[in-house]
Amino acid sequence: MTSVIGKSVKRTDTLGKVTGGAVYAGDVVLPGLLHGKTKRSTVAHARIKAIDTTKALALPGVKAILTHGDVPRVLHYGSPHPRSASVTQDQYILDTKVRYFGEGVAAVAATSEEIAELACELIEVEYEPLPAVFTVEDALKPGAPAIHDVGPGGNLVLDPFVVTRGDVEKGFAEADLIVEGEYGMGRPTPAYMEPNVCVCQWDPLGKLTIWTSTQSPFMVRGTLAEVLGLPLNKVRVLVDHMGGGFGAKQDLFQHEFLCALLAQRTRRPVRMEFTRKETFLGGRTRHPGTVWIRQGFKRDGTITAREAKVVFNSGAYGSHGPGVTAVGTAALTSLYRCENVRLEGRCVYTNTPIAGAFRGYGVVQTYYALDILMDEAAETLGMDPAALKLKNAVREGDVAPSNHPLTGHGLEDCIRRGMDETGWASRSSKPKAGRLRRGWGMGCEMHGSSAYPGIKEQGNAVVRMNEDGSVTLLTGTTGLGTGAHTALAQITAEELGVTFEDVAVVHGDTDVVPWDIGAFASHTTFMAGRACQMAAAQVKAKVLARAADRLEVSAADLEIRDSVITVKGVPGMSLTVREAIAAEKGIPAPQLLGEGSYHPTKSYSFGAHFVEVEVDTETGQVSVLQVVPVHEIGKVIHPIAAAGQIEGGIQQGIGHTLSEDFVVDHRDGRPLNASFVDYKMPLAMDMPPIRTIILETAPSDGGPFGAKGVGEDPIIAIGPAIANAIHDAIGVRFRHYPITPEQILAALEEKAGAQAA
Amino acid sequence: MTSVIGKSVKRTDTLGKVTGGAVYAGDVVLPGLLHGKTKRSTVAHARIKAIDTTKALALPGVKAILTHGDVPRVLHYGSPHPRSASVTQDQYILDTKVRYFGEGVAAVAATSEEIAELACELIEVEYEPLPAVFTVEDALKPGAPAIHDVGPGGNLVLDPFVVTRGDVEKGFAEADLIVEGEYGMGRPTPAYMEPNVCVCQWDPLGKLTIWTSTQSPFMVRGTLAEVLGLPLNKVRVLVDHMGGGFGAKQDLFQHEFLCALLAQRTRRPVRMEFTRKETFLGGRTRHPGTVWIRQGFKRDGTITAREAKVVFNSGAYGSHGPGVTAVGTAALTSLYRCENVRLEGRCVYTNTPIAGAFRGYGVVQTYYALDILMDEAAETLGMDPAALKLKNAVREGDVAPSNHPLTGHGLEDCIRRGMDETGWASRSSKPKAGRLRRGWGMGCEMHGSSAYPGIKEQGNAVVRMNEDGSVTLLTGTTGLGTGAHTALAQITAEELGVTFEDVAVVHGDTDVVPWDIGAFASHTTFMAGRACQMAAAQVKAKVLARAADRLEVSAADLEIRDSVITVKGVPGMSLTVREAIAAEKGIPAPQLLGEGSYHPTKSYSFGAHFVEVEVDTETGQVSVLQVVPVHEIGKVIHPIAAAGQIEGGIQQGIGHTLSEDFVVDHRDGRPLNASFVDYKMPLAMDMPPIRTIILETAPSDGGPFGAKGVGEDPIIAIGPAIANAIHDAIGVRFRHYPITPEQILAALEEKAGAQAA
Repeated sequence: MTSVIGKSVKRTDTLGKVTGGAVYAGDVVLPGLLHGKTKRSTVAHARIKAIDTTKALALPGVKAILTHGDVPRVLHYGSPHPRSASVTQDQYILDTKVRYFGEGVAAVAATSEEIAELACELIEVEYEPLPAVFTVEDALKPGAPAIHDVGPGGNLVLDPFVVTRGDVEKGFAEADLIVEGEYGMGRPTPAYMEPNVCVCQWDPLGKLTIWTSTQSPFMVRGTLAEVLGLPLNKVRVLVDHMGGGFGAKQDLFQHEFLCALLAQRTRRPVRMEFTRKETFLGGRTRHPGTVWIRQGFKRDGTITAREAKVVFNSGAYGSHGPGVTAVGTAALTSLYRCENVRLEGRCVYTNTPIAGAFRGYGVVQTYYALDILMDEAAETLGMDPAALKLKNAVREGDVAPSNHPLTGHGLEDCIRRGMDETGWASRSSKPKAGRLRRGWGMGCEMHGSSAYPGIKEQGNAVVRMNEDGSVTLLTGTTGLGTGAHTALAQITAEELGVTFEDVAVVHGDTDVVPWDIGAFASHTTFMAGRACQMAAAQVKAKVLARAADRLEVSAADLEIRDSVITVKGVPGMSLTVREAIAAEKGIPAPQLLGEGSYHPTKSYSFGAHFVEVEVDTETGQVSVLQVVPVHEIGKVIHPIAAAGQIEGGIQQGIGHTLSEDFVVDHRDGRPLNASFVDYKMPLAMDMPPIRTIILETAPSDGGPFGAKGVGEDPIIAIGPAIANAIHDAIGVRFRHYPITPEQILAALEEKAGAQAA
Repeated sequence: MTSVIGKSVKRTDTLGKVTGGAVYAGDVVLPGLLHGKTKRSTVAHARIKAIDTTKALALPGVKAILTHGDVPRVLHYGSPHPRSASVTQDQYILDTKVRYFGEGVAAVAATSEEIAELACELIEVEYEPLPAVFTVEDALKPGAPAIHDVGPGGNLVLDPFVVTRGDVEKGFAEADLIVEGEYGMGRPTPAYMEPNVCVCQWDPLGKLTIWTSTQSPFMVRGTLAEVLGLPLNKVRVLVDHMGGGFGAKQDLFQHEFLCALLAQRTRRPVRMEFTRKETFLGGRTRHPGTVWIRQGFKRDGTITAREAKVVFNSGAYGSHGPGVTAVGTAALTSLYRCENVRLEGRCVYTNTPIAGAFRGYGVVQTYYALDILMDEAAETLGMDPAALKLKNAVREGDVAPSNHPLTGHGLEDCIRRGMDETGWASRSSKPKAGRLRRGWGMGCEMHGSSAYPGIKEQGNAVVRMNEDGSVTLLTGTTGLGTGAHTALAQITAEELGVTFEDVAVVHGDTDVVPWDIGAFASHTTFMAGRACQMAAAQVKAKVLARAADRLEVSAADLEIRDSVITVKGVPGMSLTVREAIAAEKGIPAPQLLGEGSYHPTKSYSFGAHFVEVEVDTETGQVSVLQVVPVHEIGKVIHPIAAAGQIEGGIQQGIGHTLSEDFVVDHRDGRPLNASFVDYKMPLAMDMPPIRTIILETAPSDGGPFGAKGVGEDPIIAIGPAIANAIHDAIGVRFRHYPITPEQILAALEEKAGAQAA
């Protein structure tokens, strides 16, 4: 029986957040602090002929201006150290060329933000315009303007990513039915509440300290060190609390390099914070794109073949394009079993804002397509869509996208449970006429805990017991707001046999905590958690060895619970942890330190979302009436935090599916809705009731106590579930997101016209 | 051959110090910071009848006032955790009684230092005066007012500390000559440049962070946690740079508790910084006292017996009185061999400022007495004093004060070398008449590296290698300004086979660095250094194991130098450290972490100081013309830093011997010279040439690469050397310090009168 895990203990971060005591990078104030601002491009594609900083430099309070000639010319990216195959190296800190509207061309440090902004306006940039392309279709045309010199050419970020399994021709030949469709995706942004912000300071010995809002402090350390030519122990990255990242804050951004260089130049600390507009212009979006899929089916619903072409729009730079393309494309090998598969993934440069890593990492797009196509197939086959998905659901022993064999029957469990919970078989099909029409839809997903091979996937932890038996956990993971540190403390406490309150978590300082790849890929609880468990087990062994000596029993006969060590089967024979670690004969206990280092095997979590919507046929408005998400995530460490992840993912997914789209003018590349006034996300009051169900039916061998990840899963299945529910409600099939009221009205009109004709 | 140790590499702390970039506790600025001040007693001994804070609280800007009723009533002291026998627990944060002039009776937090000061003046305290005692003689008289309820009574801080060896009666019976004297010591203060200062802040989860100028962050953590009722992981102590401590800053001071409590009360960060006057009033001094010694000698100089009575004046509280008394008294078992010894040490409360730990820790006083007495004996025996000391010098196998057998012949080596260097045998005895009279004197000392048993003596270290082969050392030791972190980095680099520049030192944060007892007792390089070596050796073993795998050789055949791993005897077969730790077949190296935990056996360092002085018989002024200090300290890690310690100790010792004395008015306990205007220390321009000689003839088995301590040694022998030199110059024997010009003139006058008579 567990003591600490599986319970919704009071999170370590909440009290700080509700009282305002939590420190974010933007809260850092240093003596002599300067404020930096980025001068941004007002054209989408151009060579920079000249930059005149004279007027700006003359402005009182301006301390330094950097243009492309003033910064190291190193191709960089927000890559882990050493470089990985998931990301590109195609961006300079400042280049002689601009590739999208809003790209930084210069940076100013001044005594106030207002002066820095004014100085940016006074910087005069002379552009030599270049032809620009904004869509993947235009970018892939022969003779399209080349946005980059690097890469395979033809505006491809990388060579096409190809996966083949079995014999696709044979599979299609055996099919009784072939279903095919092309699906399109808009450009949602992560829209984290905390804008990108950093503060940089150099010490007299040439060591850089950067407080920054990042998911990956050690990536920031590695890349800054590489670009600035420093050893790793001369870059210190600090991040305490964060207001969200959702994957995008894995990257290093222009302002982080510029801030470091401005601080170096001025010999003063410099702070740079994005405006909300800059989080759109200079941030990262999900990859827009198209996914074409063709599937062959037997009459009984068995899938015989699958072919897909994925084309992602990377925007002006590659960022995580290679990884997103690979993960999103490879995901189509799975979810629904198919022996014959041929997939191609492409990632294409355009003169638009940069797409990057974003919760769901390519899978949101490809499973949106796949799961709508499955619904279409069910309709054609005359089958219940949930039954068709259940029939084809991947299961124990199937080959996962990562080429590992899957364990457990999580997806089947989720579908079955959701069907039971919603009374799916007997679900209402009332008002299919009238103004307000309701419908049900469901979608499925699976997602790996931890990233694909090729990057340094490794969880590390150091656990130290203090002289009073209290415990300090040192972890390199960041807390995006998910409650990760709470879960890690729970795992540590559980393994050590102490209470949750006994464990303090130290994080957010690359100088002192063990290396960590970053908080992404649904791997923190799974991978870092396992490392914590391993480190705690080492400390426990040391404590028990001392206790065994004192009690004159074998350590194997001892157990710890609530910091009391007892002898199994011998009531009354006990010792507190504090007693066990006290000095003996004047000799103090050696430091009680444990370390864990875990290189994981990928584990998959599963989910099925069941959604009821109501479509207002007069306004085109879609209301999500209820969601029943069922997730199988192995052992749950903190039920409320896990449910919070699921609910948050659903909220984001509803936004992506029904309203969020960062739009670029296809004439000049100018963003049209770079603000929360024009870019609409669902608010708390827009949210439907969510009845979250978490299953623990397929625990992971690798995760701590069987835990798996849950971070990315909940954003994936909600989209196709809504699209399928809309079809159920009004009989119109939408093959893209977002599905807007205008489109609903237009489609209803078209359908009415067709029916009338 | 060593690569990094034994070289005076560029210290890690100097550039920060010369550029002003180094951060001291007093530099910490936090948003909403309040300023705290202590209201101090204006009487030496009284009950507090009433405190009226009405007027003070009404002052705009005053946020909180604490008096004795508002603070936890816990007897505390700056003790390591768990409590040790070296220190007392006899002080409340604020008490209902005051025991010395200047003791804190209330504390104010306000929006500015000026308002806090004004508020202190507005607090009205009604005292009920009690009879006070200012000298140990008065305090020990029957019927003397009792200053404390705790302790053995009779104003004793502790029961007399007694050491006996052999048969003293028999020893004296065998003596041809008995020499006896009583020696008196003034009250020098450490007079560190950085006043005591701290900043306290509570987080919403009830965790206290304190930035404070302390030598012992983990003692601060332990004691604050205990007094405030917190687990150790809810107290975080931060200290980066320090401007000296000299032992005194081992203690917790009233203001540190008060600052924490004011911050808790106001829910805002609070800063408290001592004025220079407060460093006198509220700081710690060396123990004044008297040392009576009687020694029996054979005609050839052999010592047959030694008897001593040590009485130390502890001031109003015990602080380190027990430890100082024990160490200072036990030191008299040694230095000069004697089989028959009887020693008694007493420590006595008086209504004067608190004496505490101070470089030399009781030994300054007792060796001052012993070494002058040896000079007196040499004179009577008609022997050269250096020859007499050499004859009796302790050596290999003798029992040390700590009851360990001594290793090596360090003291003999020092005396011999000093005699050679100064041409001692043929030293000038010119102008012994006239106005300016010169003389030579010498004194000896020995001092243990690491404290006496009974406290948790343990060095700990964690060493981590980063992915690029750079190294981070985590150490709990503080840097008082001695260059300790530089030495620890050298030791780590040496052991690992990397360059000094490859090693970054993380320190000064109790949340993240391993436990450390504090920087005192000459044990940092010795004890923490050995822990660093042990931790580095673990990392080295992991690196070599990976390299051995790749090179397909045995790890035992490998060595690392300058981060290149070579195979012994196979030129050309090599691998860089970075290559060895890179990922292999996609599997990253596990974190390369090493830990060291070292519980030392005491090692002794030795020294002999040879001094030439010139006495101006008209003004009484003594000028030290030259000093030749010879120290045996095992392997030297950083020659310039070691020499710096020696020169600094000599400067302090000259001050103690010739001018420094914090004087209390014996009528009312009021301090008479609590400022640098009236309390005179030698300045740089007052310093004589010092020809430092460091021997490495008796390396320690325990210390890293044979290193021993040097922190305390150099302040000990300089005092008696000067007193002996003054006697050589003018034929007057002084048996106290400081020896002031007035006393010299008076003595010369008396001598002239006696000769005339």
